Amino acid sequence: MRYKEFKKHRERMNAKILSEGGRNAKRFFSLDTDVYRDSALPSKTKELLGLVASTVLRCNDCILYHLDKCILEGFSDEELYEALNVALIVGGSITIPHIRYAYEMIEEIRKSRQ
Amino acid sequence: MRYKEFKKHRERMNAKILSEGGRNAKRFFSLDTDVYRDSALPSKTKELLGLVASTVLRCNDCILYHLDKCILEGFSDEELYEALNVALIVGGSITIPHIRYAYEMIEEIRKSRQ
Amino acid sequence: MRYKEFKKHRERMNAKILSEGGRNAKRFFSLDTDVYRDSALPSKTKELLGLVASTVLRCNDCILYHLDKCILEGFSDEELYEALNVALIVGGSITIPHIRYAYEMIEEIRKSRQ
Amino acid sequence: MRYKEFKKHRERMNAKILSEGGRNAKRFFSLDTDVYRDSALPSKTKELLGLVASTVLRCNDCILYHLDKCILEGFSDEELYEALNVALIVGGSITIPHIRYAYEMIEEIRKSRQ
Amino acid sequence: MRYKEFKKHRERMNAKILSEGGRNAKRFFSLDTDVYRDSALPSKTKELLGLVASTVLRCNDCILYHLDKCILEGFSDEELYEALNVALIVGGSITIPHIRYAYEMIEEIRKSRQ
Amino acid sequence: MRYKEFKKHRERMNAKILSEGGRNAKRFFSLDTDVYRDSALPSKTKELLGLVASTVLRCNDCILYHLDKCILEGFSDEELYEALNVALIVGGSITIPHIRYAYEMIEEIRKSRQ
Repeated sequence: MRYKEFKKHRERMNAKILSEGGRNAKRFFSLDTDVYRDSALPSKTKELLGLVASTVLRCNDCILYHLDKCILEGFSDEELYEALNVALIVGGSITIPHIRYAYEMIEEIRKSRQ
Repeated sequence: MRYKEFKKHRERMNAKILSEGGRNAKRFFSLDTDVYRDSALPSKTKELLGLVASTVLRCNDCILYHLDKCILEGFSDEELYEALNVALIVGGSITIPHIRYAYEMIEEIRKSRQ
Repeated sequence: MRYKEFKKHRERMNAKILSEGGRNAKRFFSLDTDVYRDSALPSKTKELLGLVASTVLRCNDCILYHLDKCILEGFSDEELYEALNVALIVGGSITIPHIRYAYEMIEEIRKSRQ
Repeated sequence: MRYKEFKKHRERMNAKILSEGGRNAKRFFSLDTDVYRDSALPSKTKELLGLVASTVLRCNDCILYHLDKCILEGFSDEELYEALNVALIVGGSITIPHIRYAYEMIEEIRKSRQ
Repeated sequence: MRYKEFKKHRERMNAKILSEGGRNAKRFFSLDTDVYRDSALPSKTKELLGLVASTVLRCNDCILYHLDKCILEGFSDEELYEALNVALIVGGSITIPHIRYAYEMIEEIRKSRQ
Repeated sequence: MRYKEFKKHRERMNAKILSEGGRNAKRFFSLDTDVYRDSALPSKTKELLGLVASTVLRCNDCILYHLDKCILEGFSDEELYEALNVALIVGGSITIPHIRYAYEMIEEIRKSRQ
């Protein structure tokens, strides 16, 4: 999915899950937000952990979500590429299509912010 | 893939696999049908097992296939959401894009049946 | 791990995680308990969903944990084997070592309860 | 992704990764090419290993990449279907959407070569 | 698990699954044997496909099972190492513990055959 | 595996892979070392990325390897627990046995260093 389409779809469906999915879905989503807040580790580091975890687990939507956050946190392209190199060596060539997607979305997110 | 597109594509390609893929492909497909039939466990329960297995393994086409069956078996939205909550806690936030897809397809399947 | 060794190890390490892992670890563990409680779906069905999810994700400790719960909920061997057949067809021959482990643990749990 | 779109996208993004991703990305890509060259095992056999690995790991772009190579190496449809049957039994029904994709792309690659 | 322990455990538990797991378990196991028989592809090639699939999916028992077959089929150490190199590049550094296990078992299987 | 047993086994088998596995195995291992060196991102951050990637991919030996490095780099228990909380939310309850293992190994590594 492209960046803007993803954001719209994510917003609409998350609203539905939060309103209809029951109390436990809500608790999961709220925990999923809080885990990335500043604590013993800064939020910035944890977003990068989220990006690499998403890449080795090969989930494009999750990659896009964490790239967006990582770019807001101020990571440079070079730093993001380094993190993706860690994901590539850990996860192997099977992650390459997701690495390509990540590079493409870095371009797209930066453009949409200009 | 959307519901109707999926059904058409699935039908065309399965026909090809069954006619050209050899005897073992055929045996696999036939076993894959029979496993979900009523036995010690009712077919209805087994379709829900198939849905949760598909969600934690993060396969949208498989989610759509089993959602379709689960809705035919008579599960309510609330029951499906509960099963998806089990998948979400077992499989983690990496399943969220697939949970969103599942909620969207529940809407779409119900509409196509009205 | 064997059944009794698993229970002891699990108890000791969970206590450590809950006391030292911070508030978010605690919230995750508490949610992980609540998701399996009776709701739109009975707890019994959800434990079976947990078993099949654990099997297709190929986690022996998780299989053992849910088998224990499933047996407490009153599932017969025949019903458990049927659920494992669903996991086998969904997850493929790569799950067979875990299916073997599950059969072995069913024996061991039933014996420890006599 | 369709065959031609994939090839174009792959070419553009790989060029970007190779020019911007740093020395280690380049080394990975170069190793990823060399691993499939003739050695103790012929390149042809290794491409088939790559196809089956990609199928059980359920990565469509990787399947398409190795199918393209396998067809260049001269495998017949029947041989490719046999290899996919191995992937299907190892990886289970969760691979079926990827098997369908593989059959479809075999058609498409052969047509594009006529 | 070590080679001899594995063979004994596998034999005992498979017998139990085949006698108690119902007709569909039996059909799966029988299909799982037949898929590797000579057909469009020789059995030897298919065992190597099974080894690489098992390695990228990171299942030690499955690796051991297919190594045993591959060695019976006559593959040299050098050929097996080449196939494992394909698995390593596809699956990444996360497969390294399984590659180490494979090398160790190759030694052990060859010794047990002397 | 326990910490000391792991280190010995790893050393022996890696030596074998490097001496017998061919040039491409050597190149992979060398790249796998270099990726974690200081660059745009500090080595310390990249070891934490390796730990989280290993946890969501559920590989105990890889977790142990990166924990060892992370502790050498000076991470506190609290920081490691925070990183493991990210892995837990991304990867779900299926990672819990590996989180337990990580907590246990943190104890063991710190003791072996006193």
